[in-house]
Amino acid sequence: MTPKDLQTTHLPRVEKEMINFLTGVTTDERLLASMLYSIRAGGKRIRPQLLLAVVSGFDKPVETGVYQTAAALEMIHTYSLIHDDLPAMDDDPLRRGMPTNHIEYGEATAILAGDGLLTEAFHLLSSAVLPAEEKLLLIQLLAKRAGSGGMVAGQAADIQGENQRLSLAELQNIHQRKTGDLLSYALVAGGILAQQPVEVLAQLEQLAAHVGLAFQIRDDLLDVTATTAELGKAAHKDAAAGKNTYPELLGLDKAKEALSDELAAAEKLINELTATLPFSGELLQELLLKFRL
Amino acid sequence: MTPKDLQTTHLPRVEKEMINFLTGVTTDERLLASMLYSIRAGGKRIRPQLLLAVVSGFDKPVETGVYQTAAALEMIHTYSLIHDDLPAMDDDPLRRGMPTNHIEYGEATAILAGDGLLTEAFHLLSSAVLPAEEKLLLIQLLAKRAGSGGMVAGQAADIQGENQRLSLAELQNIHQRKTGDLLSYALVAGGILAQQPVEVLAQLEQLAAHVGLAFQIRDDLLDVTATTAELGKAAHKDAAAGKNTYPELLGLDKAKEALSDELAAAEKLINELTATLPFSGELLQELLLKFRL
Repeated sequence: MTPKDLQTTHLPRVEKEMINFLTGVTTDERLLASMLYSIRAGGKRIRPQLLLAVVSGFDKPVETGVYQTAAALEMIHTYSLIHDDLPAMDDDPLRRGMPTNHIEYGEATAILAGDGLLTEAFHLLSSAVLPAEEKLLLIQLLAKRAGSGGMVAGQAADIQGENQRLSLAELQNIHQRKTGDLLSYALVAGGILAQQPVEVLAQLEQLAAHVGLAFQIRDDLLDVTATTAELGKAAHKDAAAGKNTYPELLGLDKAKEALSDELAAAEKLINELTATLPFSGELLQELLLKFRL
Repeated sequence: MTPKDLQTTHLPRVEKEMINFLTGVTTDERLLASMLYSIRAGGKRIRPQLLLAVVSGFDKPVETGVYQTAAALEMIHTYSLIHDDLPAMDDDPLRRGMPTNHIEYGEATAILAGDGLLTEAFHLLSSAVLPAEEKLLLIQLLAKRAGSGGMVAGQAADIQGENQRLSLAELQNIHQRKTGDLLSYALVAGGILAQQPVEVLAQLEQLAAHVGLAFQIRDDLLDVTATTAELGKAAHKDAAAGKNTYPELLGLDKAKEALSDELAAAEKLINELTATLPFSGELLQELLLKFRL
């Protein structure tokens, strides 16, 4: 799989899985419109890209079940954005340059669209064209990473940490839950779909920890250095909201250094995988280039 | 299983499964407190009761996997109540005589507690002590009944229908989704856990349609006839919110008649099951007595 294949052939298939599945199961028109609005708002599809890069790195066929797993993951990610943007949460009017879901459809529908996407992710995964044991493993891991010991816990801790000064360790822990856990699922699910043994899944998980931190530090840095037009969402919101961020805690230079360190550690782990396994890490390395500032 | 066993032995086991599982997986203290607050607020546990009554009606052993399935179902029901009570939805300050989750923990935590319970229901079900194929079937059906073609769709239609006059057919359709689908899951999941063939699952689903309607008509009637103290939540809210209800659409007498009709239809179907299968319907009949006014 080349980076171009990924963009022009494989991501559109993931997109299609999401849209077709939601359209097929949803019985309320306005609810469907609201869910598809946020799905179509797109974004970079980082998580599906990472998942596909791992599966193809192991030279496994990328078939329907793989697209469905990637689609379920992106549906979970999309629900989390809709709920995070709500007035009671981050109160964001703008996402990817477009009005957020609750601005466009109202708060009640946005809450339900999030609930719907979250539930349908498990519906899609349980219906995927994959062996039963593999599906159960994927469902269990997704629920664990997305749930109250994972992403939801990170979001809760993030909100509680507002307007309090956190230590670097506390901040890292929040980000590991809030964004790292779902990125971790992307890589490990790729390994599960490629039928890798637990030791390899553990290596992928280790890699994911660095990828997750790099992702978050970059996000924090962009909030400080970029404009609203560049981001497609309101810039400089973190400081205004009293959020703990890496630039805030470490200063701009040290934060940039931390980003480089995490990316270097990730690169090293990918090289170890390619050295010890029949694994090609080129596409993964290519994706990590986008994590640079 | 006698009605007394159900109350004193089996429901406490379901309760324990919910509390132990959530306590085991949740890493954020405030989030856990908020989830357990709504779980412990209790209620009648109608759905677990129906599920247990079906399993034991088929004279199947009620083991850990059955309690876990009932616990996952009640977690989904509890999440739906938390989200339904939110200011942007039904805006209810009181539930079962206690402040609602967002009144007690704030809106952000209440949204996340709902998201957590919803996700952990699938985590628990995927980890249950049951055969793989049975778990997948239960997960798939639960997601279908709870998702954007089921409960979430019903909630969306209910909100859109406020302050509009609906036909009886439209109202029934909303209720079938909003409350009927999860009650239906309770009965059909009981049949799946008792390893029943699809024809029997279809009969249970038919039964569930009447049980679901009876439940909703009774709920609508109580909103009109009972006091806030009796309900443990605000009475006379439906009319104030411009909700479509059975008494509103049919008048009080006809609504009471419709309740009797649905219960009679349910009773007839239970009798058919006991006449044609090795199934004892006593406990189910006993539970339906509580659906009378």
